[in-house]
Amino acid sequence: MSEPENSKRPVAILGATGVVGQHLVQHLVDHPWFVVSELVASDRSAGRPYAESVTWRIPGPVPDPVRDLVVREPDAARLESDLVFSALDASVAREIEAACAARGKVVVSNARSHRMDDDVPLIVPEVNAGHLELVEAQRERRGWGGFIVTNPNCSVIGLTLALAPIAKTAGIRRVVVTTMQALSGAGYPGVASIDVADNVVPAIPGEEEKIASEPRKILGRLANDRVVPADLLVSAHTHRVGVSDGHLLAVSLETDEPLSPADAAGVLAAFRGEPPVPGLPSAPPEPVVVLDADDRPQPRLDRMRGRGMTVSVGRVRACPVLGLAMEVLSHNTIRGAAGGTLLIAELLAAEGRLA
Amino acid sequence: MSEPENSKRPVAILGATGVVGQHLVQHLVDHPWFVVSELVASDRSAGRPYAESVTWRIPGPVPDPVRDLVVREPDAARLESDLVFSALDASVAREIEAACAARGKVVVSNARSHRMDDDVPLIVPEVNAGHLELVEAQRERRGWGGFIVTNPNCSVIGLTLALAPIAKTAGIRRVVVTTMQALSGAGYPGVASIDVADNVVPAIPGEEEKIASEPRKILGRLANDRVVPADLLVSAHTHRVGVSDGHLLAVSLETDEPLSPADAAGVLAAFRGEPPVPGLPSAPPEPVVVLDADDRPQPRLDRMRGRGMTVSVGRVRACPVLGLAMEVLSHNTIRGAAGGTLLIAELLAAEGRLA
Amino acid sequence: MSEPENSKRPVAILGATGVVGQHLVQHLVDHPWFVVSELVASDRSAGRPYAESVTWRIPGPVPDPVRDLVVREPDAARLESDLVFSALDASVAREIEAACAARGKVVVSNARSHRMDDDVPLIVPEVNAGHLELVEAQRERRGWGGFIVTNPNCSVIGLTLALAPIAKTAGIRRVVVTTMQALSGAGYPGVASIDVADNVVPAIPGEEEKIASEPRKILGRLANDRVVPADLLVSAHTHRVGVSDGHLLAVSLETDEPLSPADAAGVLAAFRGEPPVPGLPSAPPEPVVVLDADDRPQPRLDRMRGRGMTVSVGRVRACPVLGLAMEVLSHNTIRGAAGGTLLIAELLAAEGRLA
Amino acid sequence: MSEPENSKRPVAILGATGVVGQHLVQHLVDHPWFVVSELVASDRSAGRPYAESVTWRIPGPVPDPVRDLVVREPDAARLESDLVFSALDASVAREIEAACAARGKVVVSNARSHRMDDDVPLIVPEVNAGHLELVEAQRERRGWGGFIVTNPNCSVIGLTLALAPIAKTAGIRRVVVTTMQALSGAGYPGVASIDVADNVVPAIPGEEEKIASEPRKILGRLANDRVVPADLLVSAHTHRVGVSDGHLLAVSLETDEPLSPADAAGVLAAFRGEPPVPGLPSAPPEPVVVLDADDRPQPRLDRMRGRGMTVSVGRVRACPVLGLAMEVLSHNTIRGAAGGTLLIAELLAAEGRLA
Repeated sequence: MSEPENSKRPVAILGATGVVGQHLVQHLVDHPWFVVSELVASDRSAGRPYAESVTWRIPGPVPDPVRDLVVREPDAARLESDLVFSALDASVAREIEAACAARGKVVVSNARSHRMDDDVPLIVPEVNAGHLELVEAQRERRGWGGFIVTNPNCSVIGLTLALAPIAKTAGIRRVVVTTMQALSGAGYPGVASIDVADNVVPAIPGEEEKIASEPRKILGRLANDRVVPADLLVSAHTHRVGVSDGHLLAVSLETDEPLSPADAAGVLAAFRGEPPVPGLPSAPPEPVVVLDADDRPQPRLDRMRGRGMTVSVGRVRACPVLGLAMEVLSHNTIRGAAGGTLLIAELLAAEGRLA
Repeated sequence: MSEPENSKRPVAILGATGVVGQHLVQHLVDHPWFVVSELVASDRSAGRPYAESVTWRIPGPVPDPVRDLVVREPDAARLESDLVFSALDASVAREIEAACAARGKVVVSNARSHRMDDDVPLIVPEVNAGHLELVEAQRERRGWGGFIVTNPNCSVIGLTLALAPIAKTAGIRRVVVTTMQALSGAGYPGVASIDVADNVVPAIPGEEEKIASEPRKILGRLANDRVVPADLLVSAHTHRVGVSDGHLLAVSLETDEPLSPADAAGVLAAFRGEPPVPGLPSAPPEPVVVLDADDRPQPRLDRMRGRGMTVSVGRVRACPVLGLAMEVLSHNTIRGAAGGTLLIAELLAAEGRLA
Repeated sequence: MSEPENSKRPVAILGATGVVGQHLVQHLVDHPWFVVSELVASDRSAGRPYAESVTWRIPGPVPDPVRDLVVREPDAARLESDLVFSALDASVAREIEAACAARGKVVVSNARSHRMDDDVPLIVPEVNAGHLELVEAQRERRGWGGFIVTNPNCSVIGLTLALAPIAKTAGIRRVVVTTMQALSGAGYPGVASIDVADNVVPAIPGEEEKIASEPRKILGRLANDRVVPADLLVSAHTHRVGVSDGHLLAVSLETDEPLSPADAAGVLAAFRGEPPVPGLPSAPPEPVVVLDADDRPQPRLDRMRGRGMTVSVGRVRACPVLGLAMEVLSHNTIRGAAGGTLLIAELLAAEGRLA
Repeated sequence: MSEPENSKRPVAILGATGVVGQHLVQHLVDHPWFVVSELVASDRSAGRPYAESVTWRIPGPVPDPVRDLVVREPDAARLESDLVFSALDASVAREIEAACAARGKVVVSNARSHRMDDDVPLIVPEVNAGHLELVEAQRERRGWGGFIVTNPNCSVIGLTLALAPIAKTAGIRRVVVTTMQALSGAGYPGVASIDVADNVVPAIPGEEEKIASEPRKILGRLANDRVVPADLLVSAHTHRVGVSDGHLLAVSLETDEPLSPADAAGVLAAFRGEPPVPGLPSAPPEPVVVLDADDRPQPRLDRMRGRGMTVSVGRVRACPVLGLAMEVLSHNTIRGAAGGTLLIAELLAAEGRLA
């Protein structure tokens, strides 16, 4: 599979100095289709070379190809790239992303600002690539030359990848999920170290609402230029734990049709998503792996499966209350943020949706 | 309230060199009713002074009154104390505890060996003190001069204290609980450090079964010399997290009768247990506190409430799937082990069940 | 020993909502000599009851006696208490503390602002109580009715308590110290959690300079109304580690006179400080304990010795390079901040230096 | 550069189920010169396929090429490979390694058993490749067809790589080093999790002696078929901290000739080792990197530089006591164990020392 054009497509990264922005930069080095052309930051870092303005928080050095790129101010009118990745804080993302789309750019956003807008697709490529059709309605209604596509919340992506194959097979009505989320999910500086030292924080502001609502949209079906939400109730208990990367979820769920743990494990292991997703550059060989060992998945050992893009499921078993129980792990800054965002862009390219 | 006798009652501690044994030793220093008289260990430490044979793993020094007590072998026939605390591993507890009871001793055990025996009480004093009547049937059936009473699993105690007031008010049918359990709960050496470094282990062998079964017995009712289990389904997802002390539980539950979060919080805050429990030396002023802050309870900040004997509940709220949700924290080695065991013994004394 | 006056002396706490301020509040509840009368905070919290304006970050509840105290603005002219504890950030402490002293108040400060001023005593009560005489020169030179006394850096206090007895016996010329400092030492929010997750940060800004300079003043001698610094070279390597409380120091040192490890341990264990310090309310029975076990001191197990006021020393042994080596642990927010500050105030009271 | 032979050389791994053994297995997959042919374990795992007998403790799955290899008993007489990697515990390594060498095999060992034997090379390839000549004397004296070469202690390797360039330039007499060592360095299960939770353990048994002695041998010079140790005093303070991988060392050192921090950083950055080492498959582009940022190196961010084979040095600065100070980080299970062992074998191959 290849992008139709001969040369690599230039991309801009909004919020390039933040943690998700840094991961996007790192993932885009040596990307076969895209090349980082513009780095944008909303802070005082504009005007200086990227290597000087960023406080690099992830392992490895600042990649050579972007070290000397001068960071730009977040002014949509002056951006040249037609494809824009947004890793902005929600506080500033809404307006800038809309301004970019209005100027004809395709915006793939990791911010929550537009996720629940009726005409904005909220995409997990293996799960609901078909929802991308919403962008036509979006352009028309808003009179935009471009459009916005959004990447879900970092906990929701792992959860949805583990629910979708089961939902397709047996239907899912009710889910109780307890999250144990990694520190990197809070951005930088995020959680104060003393708050998680020898501790667990049993609350992440705003997260439980996202986990209740976003899966309904992702697992919903397209009808009349909008998504009819799935008839699904999700109860979330969120926690911040002292783990660097990797969100772990304890899930109990109720299916419409009976489904044994073995059969549930089977449909999860067989899940691949529809073409063209499985062959995209950032798509893992297996979106979901089912681990046999009775003490897996574990963040430190399993988060990097499929270069951080594979969701690991384990302990698929009977739940005496809701029917099925399992543990789900996904890498929050890769599959849950930078990698997921990039995979959406690759899907757009493969579908010919980039001008 | 006071023990009937003039002088302090001598007690033996089985498994005195283990972590729970050390906590028992620490809690019994300056106890108004009991005095440590015999320290027993199942290992090579017998024959040497306690301060030499124990590897003291808890903050503070080995208490002076027991430093020079010579550790004894676990031979029931040679124990002099009539009251025996057992902090043995389940692998050896079953026989030794029975041998002690057969020789007329009262055994209060933290081991799981006899917990689910039909004629052995499994006691959380504030919740089911009445179940102590089982000991009469136990003595009769087994022909023992003494008897065994057991302290529940460390996660079960906190859970049951948080469920009991709600169950009494509105009935509870179904519970989904996800535990985030402290390292000290695994004994010593317990979990390998590399297994929880930057990690969460999503499984604790045998724990989910205990959490499913023990609350049914504790919340059951006594009838015809046995406990009729409560009609309660508990689904448990257990995890080991990198916290020293304090088990945190995320709980969703379904009541028989409707109960608002505010009313649930009210019955929890008002809960005190029946006399004579509230006045016992180890009983906290409040068995359960309900915290208002939206990010509590937290292990590091809340585990020592009520000198480690109070269960902290927070975030009592609606659960879209089962009706009610809350977070529950209890100190696993105090309320969940040494302190809970001691409180049972105090209850036995107050009820005149110690010869 | 008792304060000369009949009733408790009212005190004000500057920076009362910060972490050190919270510890001061907690330590002053039930203090035999002092009572918290005024709480001052430099932020938007002024005007509201303390329990509402503080984000309480330490275990246990906000103490009842101060819950309803209305937090005041940092205006020296309106403070009524003659004794003022300062837990302010250095950025604002300098001026406010001086204004208080100018208005006749005695300021005992944990801030670094005035520590190295020639006429300001930098006090570890067991070590250099005699330096308090500096306050007379301070008052005279500055024309103040009151004066300022300062509490050293949190790492310096533990280090100095471990060096002083050896220095007195054998002289100390050179010290190499590597610190492994707790998170609470950075205030709140302090270090970002992701920065210490699965990590050690090998630098604490400004800390190495303080460790190089403050011990020279503390171990110096008073002459002609100033402190002649000790002839001591200290090389510090500072690190932040993922520990909640308790600074651990690995120390190598060179003495003027030969001193065996056994003799060094002996002088440390025998160290008590001069009267009236040993009997002060916050003074521990032993300022320094020497632990025998070959893997101590450890932060989690030893930091609370002497209610957090005792410095624990272990592994006193020969250093092939400098002569002596040892490990030193002290509780950074108690001995190193709130408790140390309070002990200085008690010393001032016992010496009759409070008007 | 290439191994002289056409096909890959078969190797045996002793102690293949341990943590270092697992890293060796992982590093040997796709190795250009070697192929894993025999897996040997000293425990009950012999006789079963590797994937069944190993409890895989490192990220990623058991590599496919070795999943079905049947684990063998540690019987030197039945081993077929002429090149043997030993990741055995020192308790059993001594005899088996000697038996292998006596049977003509080349043993590259990570165990400490033979490290300090007069006629056994202790090698850091970039530092003292020339010491390999010792093997001739070894063979002759012991009458062996093969020989043993050893890889140093995991802390010593990082330290020595950071000392060697400075020693060569200016001479080094005295070193004070404080280590903060990762959990994986203790093997499995290693340190109990409760011992490092919210804690630092200020002692690693046997480690300080190795750090004092091994660098003297590595930095020594060959003369008359033995190594004349370097005239170097090393004082070590060892600590175990709650970090998964990566040993951090705080180092103060005294040179014979004056050397400024800038010059020290310069010689470290320029260090490459002698041919043929720099081009070997496991050799990193830079054995040592010098980081500019004032808060580096950090274990989580820097341990994987050079695929875990590069030592990161930072904060090169003046030490007021010994002259120079710096922080040194190396990956303990890669550079310090599996990768270092493999690099030695590659050096032996490149020098034609494998039959």
